[in-house]
Amino acid sequence: MKKKFAISPTTRLRRSPFFESTVKEGVTGFYPYNNMLMPTGFGHPEQEYWRIINGVSMWDVAVERQVEINGPDASKLAQVLCPRNLSKCQEGQGKYVALCNHDGVIINDPILLKLSENRFWLSIADNNIVLFARAVAAERGLNVTVFEPDVSPLAVQGPKAEEVIASIFGDWVRDLKYFWFKETQINGIPLQVARSGWSKQGGFELYLMDSSKATTLWNIIKEAGKAWDIGPGNPNMSERIESGLLSYGSDTDDKTNPFEIRMGKYINLEVPDDTIGIKALRKIAAEGPKRHQLGVVLDGNTPSEIAAEWQDIQQNGKNIGSMTSGVWSRRLEKNIGLALINIDNRVGENAIVKTKNGNVKCDLVELPFL
Amino acid sequence: MKKKFAISPTTRLRRSPFFESTVKEGVTGFYPYNNMLMPTGFGHPEQEYWRIINGVSMWDVAVERQVEINGPDASKLAQVLCPRNLSKCQEGQGKYVALCNHDGVIINDPILLKLSENRFWLSIADNNIVLFARAVAAERGLNVTVFEPDVSPLAVQGPKAEEVIASIFGDWVRDLKYFWFKETQINGIPLQVARSGWSKQGGFELYLMDSSKATTLWNIIKEAGKAWDIGPGNPNMSERIESGLLSYGSDTDDKTNPFEIRMGKYINLEVPDDTIGIKALRKIAAEGPKRHQLGVVLDGNTPSEIAAEWQDIQQNGKNIGSMTSGVWSRRLEKNIGLALINIDNRVGENAIVKTKNGNVKCDLVELPFL
Repeated sequence: MKKKFAISPTTRLRRSPFFESTVKEGVTGFYPYNNMLMPTGFGHPEQEYWRIINGVSMWDVAVERQVEINGPDASKLAQVLCPRNLSKCQEGQGKYVALCNHDGVIINDPILLKLSENRFWLSIADNNIVLFARAVAAERGLNVTVFEPDVSPLAVQGPKAEEVIASIFGDWVRDLKYFWFKETQINGIPLQVARSGWSKQGGFELYLMDSSKATTLWNIIKEAGKAWDIGPGNPNMSERIESGLLSYGSDTDDKTNPFEIRMGKYINLEVPDDTIGIKALRKIAAEGPKRHQLGVVLDGNTPSEIAAEWQDIQQNGKNIGSMTSGVWSRRLEKNIGLALINIDNRVGENAIVKTKNGNVKCDLVELPFL
Repeated sequence: MKKKFAISPTTRLRRSPFFESTVKEGVTGFYPYNNMLMPTGFGHPEQEYWRIINGVSMWDVAVERQVEINGPDASKLAQVLCPRNLSKCQEGQGKYVALCNHDGVIINDPILLKLSENRFWLSIADNNIVLFARAVAAERGLNVTVFEPDVSPLAVQGPKAEEVIASIFGDWVRDLKYFWFKETQINGIPLQVARSGWSKQGGFELYLMDSSKATTLWNIIKEAGKAWDIGPGNPNMSERIESGLLSYGSDTDDKTNPFEIRMGKYINLEVPDDTIGIKALRKIAAEGPKRHQLGVVLDGNTPSEIAAEWQDIQQNGKNIGSMTSGVWSRRLEKNIGLALINIDNRVGENAIVKTKNGNVKCDLVELPFL
């Protein structure tokens, strides 16, 4: 889409509680995500990129909604939904999981947060997991409630994020392990501090538990971050592709299983038989996946327009897969992309990406890029 | 949102096959809907409105995705999903249904189209019903496949729509009853012609069954419609609110049941006990709903900005409900809205709408407005 199209107002789209703050910061565009709008830029793409790589950046990621599973059967439902062994998951620990449907097709890649034996959150990507989890719980007669609590994450990302977060909450945050979290408060604002975030530059996510305090929290972070030159940002498409991070729904289709997208390491085939999708996943694991996710590096040294659709990848005129997301890498100074490729095509091969502006040669490479 | 924000390109959003045609027609904005973009205007709002009321308008409503239920247990699954008696539904007949979850909360308001005993489509509003229906089918061990076929509706709406459609397909379309449909083709393009559409001005929806032919179909309609001065349009917020048409997700929340939103007439309490939500719906019907959907007519004679969030409705400083969608009515020359109101507050009462620009007096009225 070269032309810019406006998002029309509708009550179907919910506002992030950080919306007014991001407007003040000069937000220029959005993605729809979980029936909300996620900021996608603040008018200075180059500065925003280097801020994440070298400094510290704050992001409205309230669109990462939480699906709370609460009640006596919460542990049971969590395990039914997650084809990963949760038996040793501790309170305060998070786990990255590949939620699958009954056919072993991935339907989300949330962080599961264990708040207590009877209370879990799934911090989800873009799909209606409340609808799915409620259906499963009801069909199985489990004694749980499933709902979306008033929780809105704010991410602080980049190599200087720890300094900012420690300056606000204290040095104990330095000891948090990756995906672990702890409940705390600042000026009476309740939140969970987690070491996590959708970048590979390190950082934290603050799970705000009272949306009426969003502007106050935003300003606390902004104020504390001044010493490290904090600024606004958002999940950065260039950084996330360089880092090989999956975007569920962008890099997956209605047939994608976890083994195809480098998530096999998060699947435990020995979870109970009543785990959704596990029988299909065992079969896929035994037979081997038909596709795998690789990187592509495109020829040329000028930034391409970002494609809004998957682009065919070919060898000798035959499709061997698709580029699922592509972007200009500022560090590699190349157009790069994530690709779903036939399993028989390997790293080191050359191919053609069929872009809107014609054929472009590419190399198939290992992920991550950086 | 006074400021206009751009939609950033992402492969998470799929393009309508009519996208290029609508760009050519001068589309100016979009809503996200079912992970696609629906056109929301073509730059001439007044002309577009009167075209629907007095003439004929063509709309890209490819976002109304189809959920195909196919296989030996298709009839069974359709009835399990729909709390409406389908036993007399015939091939070629459509039915408006209130899909509910196990708690009797509405999760969609599709048209169910019965293509054959073993094949149904749910022509859905904005929610992931493929995910839900697959989960239910798998949990119950039903022998069906559930998927999204390559089907993209194009609506032709307005009092002159029948002339346009008859000129293309023949006079038999004049005999189609409301929600009935028939498979046909034009220039080799396969489609279903249905008498339906999200307006009360009459019209048809053409369910295009080959997205590669979308531009050709668009041009056929445009060419044939010239004699009746056809032009581009889209589901029109002003017309649909005047007509009292529900927008699932806009006018409903996570607790809304069909009895609250004038869909009680589509619920059959005597459907089989294994119908999802029916036990909850029987209980709600017995106890009576706690809210009902009414219209509100706001004081004043100048168009208000369209609100992007529900707005509180109060009496004596106490909330009695919310305005869920609001718009300037060009025929009534008033700001009007749909509202979910406590059951004890009745038509004829006055109240206050808490708008961003202050309190505005309103009257509670019957729906539809026109």
